[in-house]
Amino acid sequence: MRLLVVGSIALDSVKTPFGEAKEVLGGSATYFSTAASYFTDVSVVAVVGSDFPEEHYALLKEKNIDLRGLERVKGETFRWVGEYGFDLNEAHTIATELNVFQSFEPKVPEEYKDIDYVFLANIDPEIQLSVLEQVNRPKLVACDTMNYWIEGKFEALKKLLKRVDILIINESEAREFTKEPNLVKAADIILSYGLKYLIIKRGEYGALMFGDSSIFHAPAYPLEFVYDPTGAGDSFAGGFMGYISNTDNMSEDAIRQAIVFGSVMASYNVEAFSLDRLKNLEYSAIKERFKEFKRLTHFEDL
Amino acid sequence: MRLLVVGSIALDSVKTPFGEAKEVLGGSATYFSTAASYFTDVSVVAVVGSDFPEEHYALLKEKNIDLRGLERVKGETFRWVGEYGFDLNEAHTIATELNVFQSFEPKVPEEYKDIDYVFLANIDPEIQLSVLEQVNRPKLVACDTMNYWIEGKFEALKKLLKRVDILIINESEAREFTKEPNLVKAADIILSYGLKYLIIKRGEYGALMFGDSSIFHAPAYPLEFVYDPTGAGDSFAGGFMGYISNTDNMSEDAIRQAIVFGSVMASYNVEAFSLDRLKNLEYSAIKERFKEFKRLTHFEDL
Repeated sequence: MRLLVVGSIALDSVKTPFGEAKEVLGGSATYFSTAASYFTDVSVVAVVGSDFPEEHYALLKEKNIDLRGLERVKGETFRWVGEYGFDLNEAHTIATELNVFQSFEPKVPEEYKDIDYVFLANIDPEIQLSVLEQVNRPKLVACDTMNYWIEGKFEALKKLLKRVDILIINESEAREFTKEPNLVKAADIILSYGLKYLIIKRGEYGALMFGDSSIFHAPAYPLEFVYDPTGAGDSFAGGFMGYISNTDNMSEDAIRQAIVFGSVMASYNVEAFSLDRLKNLEYSAIKERFKEFKRLTHFEDL
Repeated sequence: MRLLVVGSIALDSVKTPFGEAKEVLGGSATYFSTAASYFTDVSVVAVVGSDFPEEHYALLKEKNIDLRGLERVKGETFRWVGEYGFDLNEAHTIATELNVFQSFEPKVPEEYKDIDYVFLANIDPEIQLSVLEQVNRPKLVACDTMNYWIEGKFEALKKLLKRVDILIINESEAREFTKEPNLVKAADIILSYGLKYLIIKRGEYGALMFGDSSIFHAPAYPLEFVYDPTGAGDSFAGGFMGYISNTDNMSEDAIRQAIVFGSVMASYNVEAFSLDRLKNLEYSAIKERFKEFKRLTHFEDL
């Protein structure tokens, strides 16, 4: 099946204890679509400025990502400058220059309107809602959000969640959303907005999925070298949604496998700056790491 | 088989956001032996003061814990006063009164010397070494330690690790031990001291086991109500060593199951203050929660 993502395309400057990268390809839609491209046909709705380098277009094209919904407008591309300490779990934002992303009004092309799987990356929930107004009854909608919208656009966010099947957020966002430190209780509250599943990302500690009557836990892959966590959450979402779209199966078994595929893609993503690792994967390596997750978590039943 | 633990017995005063408990039964040997008592025959070497309440003796006796190695000396029992915030992962120590524990010199009774499984709870590594001098070639020795000894008694600790099979420590201790933020690299360094396995406890994020050529990850059980994390690490170690001692099996399959049993005991422990939950378990409830860990982590292979 096909998969639609609406999000950002950015030029990132990132510094970690292990190196730095300047004006490299980034953005939620970029990480998401590249990760998902190994599983399914991905179509992007996003915006870039007139300064967006041709080589980045070429990379996304090479991944067979459908860019008919990518607007190029006059002005500068969205830029993000960030830094990580040895605790790679948290990014410290040094500068955010929204530029052309500031006035982004996603327009879903006619050719995208019947796409069955939709991911709304982290943007203003009102804009996320406007995307849902433009598409024809997708089978499954997932979205991300962040503290900024939880604090500033809570009503729009709640309205959005009524129309979404799966919310994928960070642990701190789940706590912020509910003012509840206990994650199990927080998950109950968030699920009550009408979601089928809530997926809570915990960085190097993995991910938890909460459904109606079950919980699933996937660890993060223990890596010896983590260079840059930027985009890990979007790569996770891309692997997750990519697999679901590929199998066209929304059973809990498939959702659990999809979470592991998401974790696989996130683990590859953090092994290099920007998309340097993510863009050059073989599907056999993805399957091999999936199997390593199996070995990592396996124990004999009683 | 039989299991020996050398550690502390204390009277704890604990405050969490969910309540408080004053002068209740605590200490590493207490949590460890109670957790292990559901799996195997446990013998304790520890010390208490003349003020140690009779009811606490009675409780340990009721759990069939062998107390022939428990010294009662003139003076006051070890006391610990601590507090937790909403982030229940870290205890804030308010007071530590070592009292009779200050001059504790463990004496292993003749009847304990052939015990095959030995756990050295967190004490001065020189004292841990003195215990190993007193026992006859156990099959397996595991130990705990803490930042205080890593900083103050590093040489003794390294000497100890050469004689130990399994080290069970917290994530921050593994980083402190090696000055290495990456856990996989830190584990490699620690294993090189001659250990068979290193188990890193990560509080609400579970535990990681590092062996020669494999890694195993067990999550913590997602609980809706966590009242008091005190003793979780020792309950984990008790469930872990109790199961190993019970099966008399040191295969990696058994070690992995033992880590899950450790996680089960830790999860019950934190559901109440002191030993209030841990002391009243049915074995069927322990097995049931083991099976819940299986459901929590299960996904279909490719």
